[in-house]
Amino acid sequence: MSLAIISPGRDASVWVENFKKLAPEVEIQVYPEINEPEKVKAVALWNHPKGILSDFKNLKLICSMGAGVDHILSDTTIAEDIPITRIVDDKLTISMTNYVVMSVLNYHRQIQRYQEDQKNRIWDMSNPEVPVTVGILGVGELGGDIADKLINLRFNVIGFGNSAKENLSYEYYFGDEIQKFLSKINILVCMLPLTPETEGILNLEFFKKCQKGTYLINVARGKHLIEEDLLKALDEGYISGAMLDVFQKEPLPVEHPFWERNEITITPHIASVTNPKAAAPQIIENYHLINKSQPFINQINRKRGY
Amino acid sequence: MSLAIISPGRDASVWVENFKKLAPEVEIQVYPEINEPEKVKAVALWNHPKGILSDFKNLKLICSMGAGVDHILSDTTIAEDIPITRIVDDKLTISMTNYVVMSVLNYHRQIQRYQEDQKNRIWDMSNPEVPVTVGILGVGELGGDIADKLINLRFNVIGFGNSAKENLSYEYYFGDEIQKFLSKINILVCMLPLTPETEGILNLEFFKKCQKGTYLINVARGKHLIEEDLLKALDEGYISGAMLDVFQKEPLPVEHPFWERNEITITPHIASVTNPKAAAPQIIENYHLINKSQPFINQINRKRGY
Repeated sequence: MSLAIISPGRDASVWVENFKKLAPEVEIQVYPEINEPEKVKAVALWNHPKGILSDFKNLKLICSMGAGVDHILSDTTIAEDIPITRIVDDKLTISMTNYVVMSVLNYHRQIQRYQEDQKNRIWDMSNPEVPVTVGILGVGELGGDIADKLINLRFNVIGFGNSAKENLSYEYYFGDEIQKFLSKINILVCMLPLTPETEGILNLEFFKKCQKGTYLINVARGKHLIEEDLLKALDEGYISGAMLDVFQKEPLPVEHPFWERNEITITPHIASVTNPKAAAPQIIENYHLINKSQPFINQINRKRGY
Repeated sequence: MSLAIISPGRDASVWVENFKKLAPEVEIQVYPEINEPEKVKAVALWNHPKGILSDFKNLKLICSMGAGVDHILSDTTIAEDIPITRIVDDKLTISMTNYVVMSVLNYHRQIQRYQEDQKNRIWDMSNPEVPVTVGILGVGELGGDIADKLINLRFNVIGFGNSAKENLSYEYYFGDEIQKFLSKINILVCMLPLTPETEGILNLEFFKKCQKGTYLINVARGKHLIEEDLLKALDEGYISGAMLDVFQKEPLPVEHPFWERNEITITPHIASVTNPKAAAPQIIENYHLINKSQPFINQINRKRGY
């Protein structure tokens, strides 16, 4: 019985180290050096080559090495009865929230304007704050924390999701109320999980429903955004600017038009980075639960997609 | 009996408008058009010409038009028995806190580095967060709120003040423990009131006591900082960078060396701007308290200096 790590392009050694510290007895195989596929009972995955799991005839558990599982669910060759788990890590939430709070504050307090003014030695005290109402698309574990923290800083926050929610401390819309939601906000934060329903949701038609000049923050997945539509929405003023941490193709190709747009701030998928030290125990614990009657921790609902 | 407004260089009309709305019966004289100085019972001040108050023989009350009173206390010609009040406004606190939280997040998440990378089309995911411990010099009304909000965002915060404080939710040092305080932090936020004791406190000797590479945020008063000493401290690495909202001379002179330092971010004294709509009622209420036995609201302690 062994655990395989499949995370091409990422350094697996720090994961091996953490797994070994926690459970020296567990046999670990690291892709592409998987010599005994029939022994693999569990896989830890990050952007694995599609179809590869069919090599593991005795697979009992699939563990995402991050908070998202879209990279797993998009592989249609995976048998539907194998449980999938994800990482839930307080630190992931803290980082994500702080990134979004930073983006909201930088827009609200116009840091870019002052940077420009500094270059030109201009002292302009007028209109020091842009009034904002922050709309959060997707108020689950992460989006909900962002809402709470922004409210604590006294921002107006409105949430949107795909189902009814109760006992929220902020205005919330769901289902077909998207137009109502968008008409009330001027910062849009995309925190949605990536599912077939949400892929490409940030498109030109959607941007046209926003209040003119809405600011976009995308920290979810690059595939939520139709990138050429954002350029059109910027040109036509539906969207005034964007802070983007995720992209259709990562690393963002050197020739991509986003790089040189002043209205777009780019960060290289660092809003929230999985910490192997915090994540490894969750994978090891689940590994030990194989063949036991207890439920896995942080198992996702495949139908729902997250 | 009348109220005089003395705020040279600032537009007094919005104050007059707010005062008139609240108390149409109150006679208002606006500097420099003060034709009946003997009728002036109260003055609303912001950076008045020193010595000018001696014209008002029947003055009973001095109201700062902002949160600070150093601009009043530094005028030694003012009789010591005239009460001085300041503005306490929730919105001032919110703005100040949000400015400092923004500065801390931008340093912690290295926004400038990513802006540079974007210009050069560089995708560098390494070390996405600089670990920080935030030290707040002065944890009164404003500094205390900043500490609370940063702690809510899960930052390590340490406070420093001139006297013992109890029941704080964070580590706190006072008096002669400044070296201990500085050795534990790498972001220093100056929130001190400006008094003869704190003027020039941010000097080279002080910076040498900091951990190498400490980041400075000054949102208190320009006179806290010896500006040429900051340049030396940057050159010698004691301080790695600074976000400054206040300066010895404002507007910051065009020829000032701060403008072109990459390590310094300049904003034009906009961290927290008094809102006349919120402040005017406090001044009118105090005006009505003249000759009554009740205490003024938000009266300051002249000996303490705030």
